[in-house]
Amino acid sequence: MNYCDVLEHPGRYDFTVSTLGMPTLPSPIKGRGFIADDRRIAFATREGDLRRLISTPGPFPAFEEAGPRERIFHDPAWTRAAILTAGGLCPGLNDVIKGIVETLWFAYGVRNIFGLRYGYRGLNPAYGYTPLMLDPEVVDTIHEDGGSILGSSRGNQDIAVMADTLQRMNIGTLFCIGGDGTLRGATRLAEEIKRRHLAINVVGVPKTIDNDLSFVGQAFGFETAVAACHPIITAAHMEAKGAYNGIGLVKLMGRDSGFIAAHAALSNPVVNYCLVPEVDFNLEGEGGLLPRIERRLRAGKGHAIVVVAEGAGQKFFRDCPEVRDASGNVKKHDIGELLRSAIPEYLSARGVECNVRYFDPSYLIRSVPTRGNDAIFCYQLAENAVHAAMAGKTDMVIGKWGAHFTNVPIPLAVMSRQKIDPEGSLWQAVLSATRQNREYGV
Amino acid sequence: MNYCDVLEHPGRYDFTVSTLGMPTLPSPIKGRGFIADDRRIAFATREGDLRRLISTPGPFPAFEEAGPRERIFHDPAWTRAAILTAGGLCPGLNDVIKGIVETLWFAYGVRNIFGLRYGYRGLNPAYGYTPLMLDPEVVDTIHEDGGSILGSSRGNQDIAVMADTLQRMNIGTLFCIGGDGTLRGATRLAEEIKRRHLAINVVGVPKTIDNDLSFVGQAFGFETAVAACHPIITAAHMEAKGAYNGIGLVKLMGRDSGFIAAHAALSNPVVNYCLVPEVDFNLEGEGGLLPRIERRLRAGKGHAIVVVAEGAGQKFFRDCPEVRDASGNVKKHDIGELLRSAIPEYLSARGVECNVRYFDPSYLIRSVPTRGNDAIFCYQLAENAVHAAMAGKTDMVIGKWGAHFTNVPIPLAVMSRQKIDPEGSLWQAVLSATRQNREYGV
Amino acid sequence: MNYCDVLEHPGRYDFTVSTLGMPTLPSPIKGRGFIADDRRIAFATREGDLRRLISTPGPFPAFEEAGPRERIFHDPAWTRAAILTAGGLCPGLNDVIKGIVETLWFAYGVRNIFGLRYGYRGLNPAYGYTPLMLDPEVVDTIHEDGGSILGSSRGNQDIAVMADTLQRMNIGTLFCIGGDGTLRGATRLAEEIKRRHLAINVVGVPKTIDNDLSFVGQAFGFETAVAACHPIITAAHMEAKGAYNGIGLVKLMGRDSGFIAAHAALSNPVVNYCLVPEVDFNLEGEGGLLPRIERRLRAGKGHAIVVVAEGAGQKFFRDCPEVRDASGNVKKHDIGELLRSAIPEYLSARGVECNVRYFDPSYLIRSVPTRGNDAIFCYQLAENAVHAAMAGKTDMVIGKWGAHFTNVPIPLAVMSRQKIDPEGSLWQAVLSATRQNREYGV
Amino acid sequence: MNYCDVLEHPGRYDFTVSTLGMPTLPSPIKGRGFIADDRRIAFATREGDLRRLISTPGPFPAFEEAGPRERIFHDPAWTRAAILTAGGLCPGLNDVIKGIVETLWFAYGVRNIFGLRYGYRGLNPAYGYTPLMLDPEVVDTIHEDGGSILGSSRGNQDIAVMADTLQRMNIGTLFCIGGDGTLRGATRLAEEIKRRHLAINVVGVPKTIDNDLSFVGQAFGFETAVAACHPIITAAHMEAKGAYNGIGLVKLMGRDSGFIAAHAALSNPVVNYCLVPEVDFNLEGEGGLLPRIERRLRAGKGHAIVVVAEGAGQKFFRDCPEVRDASGNVKKHDIGELLRSAIPEYLSARGVECNVRYFDPSYLIRSVPTRGNDAIFCYQLAENAVHAAMAGKTDMVIGKWGAHFTNVPIPLAVMSRQKIDPEGSLWQAVLSATRQNREYGV
Repeated sequence: MNYCDVLEHPGRYDFTVSTLGMPTLPSPIKGRGFIADDRRIAFATREGDLRRLISTPGPFPAFEEAGPRERIFHDPAWTRAAILTAGGLCPGLNDVIKGIVETLWFAYGVRNIFGLRYGYRGLNPAYGYTPLMLDPEVVDTIHEDGGSILGSSRGNQDIAVMADTLQRMNIGTLFCIGGDGTLRGATRLAEEIKRRHLAINVVGVPKTIDNDLSFVGQAFGFETAVAACHPIITAAHMEAKGAYNGIGLVKLMGRDSGFIAAHAALSNPVVNYCLVPEVDFNLEGEGGLLPRIERRLRAGKGHAIVVVAEGAGQKFFRDCPEVRDASGNVKKHDIGELLRSAIPEYLSARGVECNVRYFDPSYLIRSVPTRGNDAIFCYQLAENAVHAAMAGKTDMVIGKWGAHFTNVPIPLAVMSRQKIDPEGSLWQAVLSATRQNREYGV
Repeated sequence: MNYCDVLEHPGRYDFTVSTLGMPTLPSPIKGRGFIADDRRIAFATREGDLRRLISTPGPFPAFEEAGPRERIFHDPAWTRAAILTAGGLCPGLNDVIKGIVETLWFAYGVRNIFGLRYGYRGLNPAYGYTPLMLDPEVVDTIHEDGGSILGSSRGNQDIAVMADTLQRMNIGTLFCIGGDGTLRGATRLAEEIKRRHLAINVVGVPKTIDNDLSFVGQAFGFETAVAACHPIITAAHMEAKGAYNGIGLVKLMGRDSGFIAAHAALSNPVVNYCLVPEVDFNLEGEGGLLPRIERRLRAGKGHAIVVVAEGAGQKFFRDCPEVRDASGNVKKHDIGELLRSAIPEYLSARGVECNVRYFDPSYLIRSVPTRGNDAIFCYQLAENAVHAAMAGKTDMVIGKWGAHFTNVPIPLAVMSRQKIDPEGSLWQAVLSATRQNREYGV
Repeated sequence: MNYCDVLEHPGRYDFTVSTLGMPTLPSPIKGRGFIADDRRIAFATREGDLRRLISTPGPFPAFEEAGPRERIFHDPAWTRAAILTAGGLCPGLNDVIKGIVETLWFAYGVRNIFGLRYGYRGLNPAYGYTPLMLDPEVVDTIHEDGGSILGSSRGNQDIAVMADTLQRMNIGTLFCIGGDGTLRGATRLAEEIKRRHLAINVVGVPKTIDNDLSFVGQAFGFETAVAACHPIITAAHMEAKGAYNGIGLVKLMGRDSGFIAAHAALSNPVVNYCLVPEVDFNLEGEGGLLPRIERRLRAGKGHAIVVVAEGAGQKFFRDCPEVRDASGNVKKHDIGELLRSAIPEYLSARGVECNVRYFDPSYLIRSVPTRGNDAIFCYQLAENAVHAAMAGKTDMVIGKWGAHFTNVPIPLAVMSRQKIDPEGSLWQAVLSATRQNREYGV
Repeated sequence: MNYCDVLEHPGRYDFTVSTLGMPTLPSPIKGRGFIADDRRIAFATREGDLRRLISTPGPFPAFEEAGPRERIFHDPAWTRAAILTAGGLCPGLNDVIKGIVETLWFAYGVRNIFGLRYGYRGLNPAYGYTPLMLDPEVVDTIHEDGGSILGSSRGNQDIAVMADTLQRMNIGTLFCIGGDGTLRGATRLAEEIKRRHLAINVVGVPKTIDNDLSFVGQAFGFETAVAACHPIITAAHMEAKGAYNGIGLVKLMGRDSGFIAAHAALSNPVVNYCLVPEVDFNLEGEGGLLPRIERRLRAGKGHAIVVVAEGAGQKFFRDCPEVRDASGNVKKHDIGELLRSAIPEYLSARGVECNVRYFDPSYLIRSVPTRGNDAIFCYQLAENAVHAAMAGKTDMVIGKWGAHFTNVPIPLAVMSRQKIDPEGSLWQAVLSATRQNREYGV
């Protein structure tokens, strides 16, 4: 998402949420302010932008506000719902599952809730997985554990097969908890359902531990993942200080965007070099990482801490063949291993002894349970996903824009990846915390 | 703050930030987008509200956006800055101190930074405290610890004495990290300074572990405090389940607003009754807490978890005399102790055995270091406070509204206390998580 | 236990373990070195003591070594076992339950395992509690939680009633996980069983979070409890340093012995005064706690940390009436509350301002799950308890003496309470860590 | 160490501690029971062994008990002490440093304490490192951090050069905190000092995170390291359960002995296969790891957890060239990486899909600060090392045998590596917890 582009060409961005049809049943929820469908949250928040957008003709970019509707589409007594988690694990999956099940059960009275196993595979009978029957008892304490009780898998399944399964199992509403790839699959599935004129809706909860989805605001689990990096960077610091010219090198998640690396460096400010995909840097030559580390060690600092997002510095692998994973994502070359050998080679060639301590925590930061606010956030996303689903909305995910939960069309959410803006305040804060060079990126 | 009142009578709320005078020096900060003084963040975010506000004459309620200004007021080479922390401890105080010192030092080149000891007392020579000299070396690792390296105290000092001290010590800019009482003191101090025609500004960082300040958005340390409640509620749960008809009773902070209690109950959803100051409830009679616990135990649940904010249920002490603490705040009567004895008395009188396990963690949740996002948030508040201070703004605090940091006049921030809206989504979520009765509040 | 007395009068101490009769069945355990019944672990470990004991006639004080026996008494196919946890909670109860169930099930093939609810009450039909049926599935993940899945209660039940229940339920072996009071009950129950000529054995796992049982070595959960005190003392330190002349006052468990307080003070050496039941001290007068704190604050230290075991300083309550709890234990008067008011009263009367921050974590340190070695220790105690039970041993508990697990007669274990020896190395280490006065105890 | 061999041929094992000469000065320590030099702790603890050893002529295997001596060798006023940490990091290094400094300073009044940088390099002037001057102020809070404030390095330096440095710097007592290699260096240095007739003693604190030193009992930091493995194995479990046929593969430290892996598997009993250097196993064929995993997955278990010590399965690299690290230790081939590729290759060749999640936490478990008992243990080792040093003992380390601290000659401690006894109770417990096959080792 390019923030400015939305403001300049709002017409290119469609904020309209699809529905299965007119919601005609009264909601069983009592005593609480329902949200009207035309209540919308402005995309922009700056006064100048708002004044200009309101005074110009054409669409005003604003999200539909999420929340319970006074009239619903699905009859709770007859509704059969299904939930799946797809893609890599992320803190909070179980909180979201619990939230969906409890809201369906207690707020709406839905009693048939299926937990599909291992992502979209759970909709492909070829795998022969048996769904879990979910109820409040089953999900009572799952939020205490990391992971997903449903299991997950990468990659999409044949759209027609999945639609067939939904029809055969008589599922009326499908909750997809997943990231960019999963949501692209969800939108194609929603289209196929529409083509077949079925009254099945697909509602997503956006999962992106890398925080790289657009238009949905903050990602659940991200905060927990950043906090989980803290002890790892502390360990790297202790190791680096415990050896002569110790280099603590930590590879963190972040294939296309370096949000985790940047936040981890900010929240444990012992990091000297933070490398992310969005900011170009060189290894050698003026302003290159290696001569800068050399200078730091020669200056007698005694140690250095490097945090690198897995997608950073891919240009150094220009000559290596491309590999793809099961979801079809291009696999990143291993910048961690490259630095792990390049740093000591470069330094020892220049007569500078160093001791590299490499940390590749990967799964350690994504398999943990959520705590505090993040747990609440997951639950609220789930509640709002259920409200949207019961109201018959489809092909959409729940976002949070400022203080409000929003219903966001999936096509809008997957239009482009969110990235760190090298001119924005996040990266400026990283530069300021690490004191790395503004111009050279390291 | 009443959200609707701001929208209906924007004229009653003054969003204008005071300044010492025209900032005429070029900022020493390089290579980053400065924020223009007229860039403003709309108070409202809903499309309908915005359209109406823009089309009606009169002030448009919007915050000045925080951030570095192209021109500054104080000459860094000559600036002498002072920092104090006042009121109760809160996670993140040291992060904020570190952020202020590092931004003054590295971004602006200020070299004279005094850490005043024990809140406003540090400005009263009668106490004879020696200020700490602060520099990046001193604050390097203070964020690893809870508490405040400066120490804190409750209550304000004589305004004239404090202004005298600032003059005598030749302080040009004072940072006050504190809550409602501290900020009220800061605004009176700023008035006195203005009366004396001094070029000293007072910039606040709003500290409120109870999250009860208005117009400043989220409070730093709140997230960490909520997370710190998690293991305590878990312990209460284990104790309650480990005894026949065990009652886990947990008293949490929250004198006038129950945000910590509500969030703690949401993020560790084993709580059955969450009691906050904003929601009335009865002990006995229909819908009273005690008969509801009795019914629960008689139904064979075997245990119950009660979380109570310290300010809840004050009506039960109507006949007790009022007591005030050193800050002049009315001290709350001890609802925890009242419940600790009332529950077993009521139940045993009705032949129901129970075992109360009482937890009063108080300081345990506020003395811990921040983690993850909360640490970053503290640092960013500090950075923006320094930007505002160097630009000569005064009698203001830093807030965060949606995605943006804001400069907020202190008189606006202390106009009224933020409270849980019993009709809003937070309390609805608590009701839904605890399954406590909507009508009776328990 | 007086160590020297055992060496001097070994005849007064009976190390012989009772049995139900000759074990005649072959053990179903394969491929592992069985322990012969006459393998004994010397009570003494010093060469001189050993030489003297061996050369003098009379009994050589030594424990029967625990472990699997080649021949067993109970036929696994017919055995019905029961487990109960009694007294206060302690870290590791669930680990012990899991260890007993898994060893009974997997190593011996026992299939009827009853979990009695709420301690000895579970053997009194008057309460009407239904026992849990235990198997490896039920106990699979219980070690992840603190508390006890069986629940606990204080106090013993009528011995005849309990024996009746064991007979009626056809229980062949009873595992009692509990402390001094529970074990005294167990020994009386074993006597009643013997009087009735029943083939039911009673095997204990000694639970004492205060570490005050004699002859059993280290107590399970103690290590975890000490570690759980660490963040509380750190919080007290932060609070104390955060206020002018802050006094961090922490009350820890320890009714008759101050092991937790002493170890907590040693493992987080910011403590200035550690008060335990075993060491007399005065509040006022020369060498008294209060004047010593006064001197410390007057010397400009700025803060003080006091850790007090709940049973310390009971002499100050000489005039207060005695109260007993449900187990018949004399309840301790609240030394924490006494100090909480005495310290500021004394100091303010002498013109020294201070700010007391009181911490009463009680249950917080005993409801946590075990970690690391402590978890392993629990499991090994459980394994050895099952080996002893299957071999028909009775009226005994499992201990650990040096590197070896031991079978210890309950009458020996409850002969006297283990206490801190004020001349021994533990207390000397505390004196050295706190620098408190050797002579005055504070 | 072969336990039985010591009992059968005690004459082969020399328990005598060397000294610099007769200690003639009175100890400045007051009011505490000194330990006589002839107080000895029996090596054996079983009654039968003890009776036999005492009745046979020849040496009785027993350790000198550690502790303060009534007369000391070094004059505190003139003593210059030095401390170094060598080899890999280990939890507790800073606790030991703090303990040595505080005991030297407070108990004996030694005022010249040098902290040598980066292990034995600190004694080689060629590196040009400046030692740290240590006092109670410097070490006050170092126990809060992992790592070593002195830094460490692998490998020994030229013995003559080190002895020269000790002479030139006029060091009277050297504390070496290190493992097998470091202690071998210490013993050679002590010999060189003796050859030169210098009054310098060398006292070690045995550091071995792998717990593989003999005759010294438990290793400091080991307990903390085991506890630090807990969340990693939990994450592996969550990841494995979150993927179809997920294999959580965790490589842990343990070059020659698998104590960490074994204890980690026992303390977090979700592990299915625990592989250690001491127990042979095969990958393929009957009873091989791979077919066993295949069978487990085919049985529908859905996941498997494998914990492997880094030194396990080295036979699979028989054809690979030998590599040595700076300490001269043979580097182990990477069994983790081998399994990471062998498992999916084997399974996919047999049509079984699996998803391997590999965890290589290495440094993460050794850079953490100690907690609870482990912290106390470090401090006590340090205290006893100082008592031994001041008494003039040399070429020795502190051990703990049963309940007593001991002075152990270094040559005895490095005679052989401690290993898991596949017939002993530790491995039997692992077999029982993992249910892996006794015969095939997996």
